[in-house]
Amino acid sequence: MTMEWDALLPSDAPPAGDMAAIFELLERPGVLSFAGGLPDTAGFRTAQIAAAGTEVLTRHGPESLQYSPSPGFRWFREFLSERLARRGIPAAPAELVVTAGGSQAFDLVCRAMLRPGDHVLVEAPTFLGALATLRLFPVTVHGVPVDDKGLSADQLADDLRRLRRQGIRPRFLYTIPNFQNPTGCTLTEPRRRELVRLATEWELPVLEDDAYGELGEGAPLPALKALHPAGVVFLGTFSKIFAPGLRLGWLAGPPELAQRVVGIRQSTDQCPSSFAQFLARACDTAGILDGQIEDIRTALRRRRTATLDALARYMPEEARWTRPDGGYYTWVTLPPPLDAGKLLPHVVMQQRVAYVPGAAFYPKPADGHRQLRLSYSLVEVAQIPDGIARLGTAFRSALSAR
Amino acid sequence: MTMEWDALLPSDAPPAGDMAAIFELLERPGVLSFAGGLPDTAGFRTAQIAAAGTEVLTRHGPESLQYSPSPGFRWFREFLSERLARRGIPAAPAELVVTAGGSQAFDLVCRAMLRPGDHVLVEAPTFLGALATLRLFPVTVHGVPVDDKGLSADQLADDLRRLRRQGIRPRFLYTIPNFQNPTGCTLTEPRRRELVRLATEWELPVLEDDAYGELGEGAPLPALKALHPAGVVFLGTFSKIFAPGLRLGWLAGPPELAQRVVGIRQSTDQCPSSFAQFLARACDTAGILDGQIEDIRTALRRRRTATLDALARYMPEEARWTRPDGGYYTWVTLPPPLDAGKLLPHVVMQQRVAYVPGAAFYPKPADGHRQLRLSYSLVEVAQIPDGIARLGTAFRSALSAR
Repeated sequence: MTMEWDALLPSDAPPAGDMAAIFELLERPGVLSFAGGLPDTAGFRTAQIAAAGTEVLTRHGPESLQYSPSPGFRWFREFLSERLARRGIPAAPAELVVTAGGSQAFDLVCRAMLRPGDHVLVEAPTFLGALATLRLFPVTVHGVPVDDKGLSADQLADDLRRLRRQGIRPRFLYTIPNFQNPTGCTLTEPRRRELVRLATEWELPVLEDDAYGELGEGAPLPALKALHPAGVVFLGTFSKIFAPGLRLGWLAGPPELAQRVVGIRQSTDQCPSSFAQFLARACDTAGILDGQIEDIRTALRRRRTATLDALARYMPEEARWTRPDGGYYTWVTLPPPLDAGKLLPHVVMQQRVAYVPGAAFYPKPADGHRQLRLSYSLVEVAQIPDGIARLGTAFRSALSAR
Repeated sequence: MTMEWDALLPSDAPPAGDMAAIFELLERPGVLSFAGGLPDTAGFRTAQIAAAGTEVLTRHGPESLQYSPSPGFRWFREFLSERLARRGIPAAPAELVVTAGGSQAFDLVCRAMLRPGDHVLVEAPTFLGALATLRLFPVTVHGVPVDDKGLSADQLADDLRRLRRQGIRPRFLYTIPNFQNPTGCTLTEPRRRELVRLATEWELPVLEDDAYGELGEGAPLPALKALHPAGVVFLGTFSKIFAPGLRLGWLAGPPELAQRVVGIRQSTDQCPSSFAQFLARACDTAGILDGQIEDIRTALRRRRTATLDALARYMPEEARWTRPDGGYYTWVTLPPPLDAGKLLPHVVMQQRVAYVPGAAFYPKPADGHRQLRLSYSLVEVAQIPDGIARLGTAFRSALSAR
C-alpha cells in the first residue's frame, strides 16, 4: 500500500525555499544571528497586549471567535483607512483587504494579476520572500538596480523601453521604498516623483511594500500611494510593529483589484482572523500600538548605531555598507575575491555568527556574491560589537588567505 | 492620473464567488438563514476560552506573538498527531502542516499538486468553496455522484475507466466522507473499503476533507486515512469545533507532499498564527476543547431532529431529504417543476427564509436545480419549525401555481 508520491507530484516544483535555510540557521544553538527578519518580541508591550486580549475575549468573545467577512470587518477597514490617512495615504474601506500578513497580501495580488509567462519588475536586490512567491506562478522577473537613493528611475525607464522593443509589457513593478529589504536604503523624494511620473506615463501598476515604513527616524517621505493613488497598490503589515504571531496585514488597491483579491481570498483561507482584528484595534484604542512602535523605533535606532560603529571598527578596510535611516537592515559589500555565500558555513561553524548571503536577494542567482544582509532587529546592543568583530575576523582571515 | 485597472487585470478571472452571495443573504436583516455553514458561537465556551487566552498571553506572551515555524510548532504538530491517533488516524509530526483553516489546507495541496489543464475528481454535489478554489488553477473537474451511502464506488470505477480511455489521469479525488457538505450523507464502511481498494489499484491520491468528522453521533467509521495511510491526504480544521475566528486547520499527507506544501506556504502567508496554536493547545489541556465538542454535538442533534420533524410536517408531499447522523446539513430535493435557484429571491423577500440552491454545489452549473442545502448549525431549535413552515408555504404555493 505504498505510493510513489514524488512521481505523482508535478515535476516543475520550485526548489525548496531559501527561507527554510534561514530559519534553520536561526535555530542553530549558540549562533548569534544577523540573518532573520524577525522583530524582537522581548521589546513588545506584552503585558498590556495580554490585558487588551483578555478584554477582547471577555467583551467580544463570540464575534472574535467567529469567521470574519472575507475582506475583513468594515470597522477594521475604517480603522486602517483612518490610520493610513494620518500618513497622507488615501485608502477607502472598499479599497482595503485585510490579510494574513504582508506576504499574503503580495501573494493575493500576484494571484489576481499574474498568469504564467508574464513579466514583472522588482528591485535588484529585493525581498527574497517576494522572489519565492513569484517563482510559484511562474513569471519572468526583471531586476532594476538599487543604489543608496533607492530604485534607479533612469534605469527603470531604460528597462521599460528595452522590454517594449521585445514586445514585453511588465504586469507590475514591486518596490520597497522605505528602509528597503535587504539594502536598508530609502527611495529619495525626487526619485519617488520621477518613479510616479514614469508609472503614469507607462501605465505601469506599482506594488508598494511598506513593511518597515513606520520604523524610521525623522519626517517620513510621501508614500508612492499618496503621490499616485490610482496606480499604486499599497501592501501593509502589523508583523513588524505589533505581533507577527497574529498574522495581520492588508492591501490598499483600486476597488477593481480589491474585489478580485477578495474573490480569490474566499477560495484560499476564506477570511482574516477575527480575533487579530479585534486585538489590533483594542491595542490602538488603548495607545499600546503607537507606544510599542515608539519603543521599537528607539531599540532599532540604538542597534543600528551599534552595528554601524562596529562595522567601521571591525570590517576589512575595502568593505562598504549602507547607512539606513530606519528598518532592520544594513547591506555589506565585501572586497573581491570574497564570496559571502561560500564563506557562510565557515563563518557559522567557526565564528558562530550568521547572515544572509546577497545572492538570495537577486532575481538572477549569479548576482550579489560579494554582498550580504545584516539584520540587527533581533540582536541586543550589548552583543553587536562582539558579533560584528567575529564577522570581521572571518572576512579578514579569508582575505589574508587569498 | 486615473488608470484602467480592468484592462490591466487578466481577463480570465473566475466569476465572483458564490460565497459572497451567501454571506450577503446571511447579512440581510430579518431573514432566518439556513444558508451559511457557520458554527453557532453562542454555544462556545467563550468565558473558559477567554481565561485560557489570558493565560497564554501572560505565560507565553513573546512566543505567542512571534512568527511560528512555517509548518507549525513541533509541539503543536505532536499534539495534533496524538489527537488524530486517538481516532486511529496515523499522522507523524513531519507529515503535518498547520494551516489557516481547512480551506487553506485544500488550496495549498492544490497549489502543490495541480497544473493548468489537469483533471480532478470531486463528489457531485460537493463543498462549493472547493469548487471555487479549483476554478483558480484552472482544472477540469469531473463529478462522481453521491447518494445516501456517500460517493458511489462503482461510478468512480466507471469514471476512472472512461477517463483512461480518453488518456486522462486525474490528479486526485476530493471527498468529504463524514456528514458530507452539502448532502449530510456519510460514506458507509463497505464503500470506504471499496474506495480505498480502487484508489490503491489506480494509484489515485485521495483528499479526505474531515471538517465535520467529530460532530457525529455513535461510533465513528474508520477514516480513509486510517484505511490507506500512504494514499490519503487528510484535511482537518478547528473551525467547526473550536473557533473559526482564529483560522486554524491542518493537513496530514505523505512527507513528500507536506514538504512541498511548506515550501509554498513560505511564499504565501509564511506561517500559521502562533497565538492560535497556543490557545488551541491550552484549551485542549484544560478540557475546554472536548467539552465544547460535546456541547456542539448535543446542540446539532437537537437542531437536526427539529429540522427533520419540521420537514416531515411542512414540505410538499413529493419532496425528499437526507437524514444526517451528524454535521450541519440536510439536502432537500423538490418535486418538478420547482427550481430552487429561481425560487430563492422570492423565498427570501416574501418568506424571509434563506437556503443555498443546489446548483452551487455541482461542477456543472446545469445540475441540481431541484435541490437545496439547509444548514441548521446557526438556527435555534425554537426558530426551526416556523422557518421550515415558511419554506414549505413558499414551495407549496409555487407547486399549486404551476
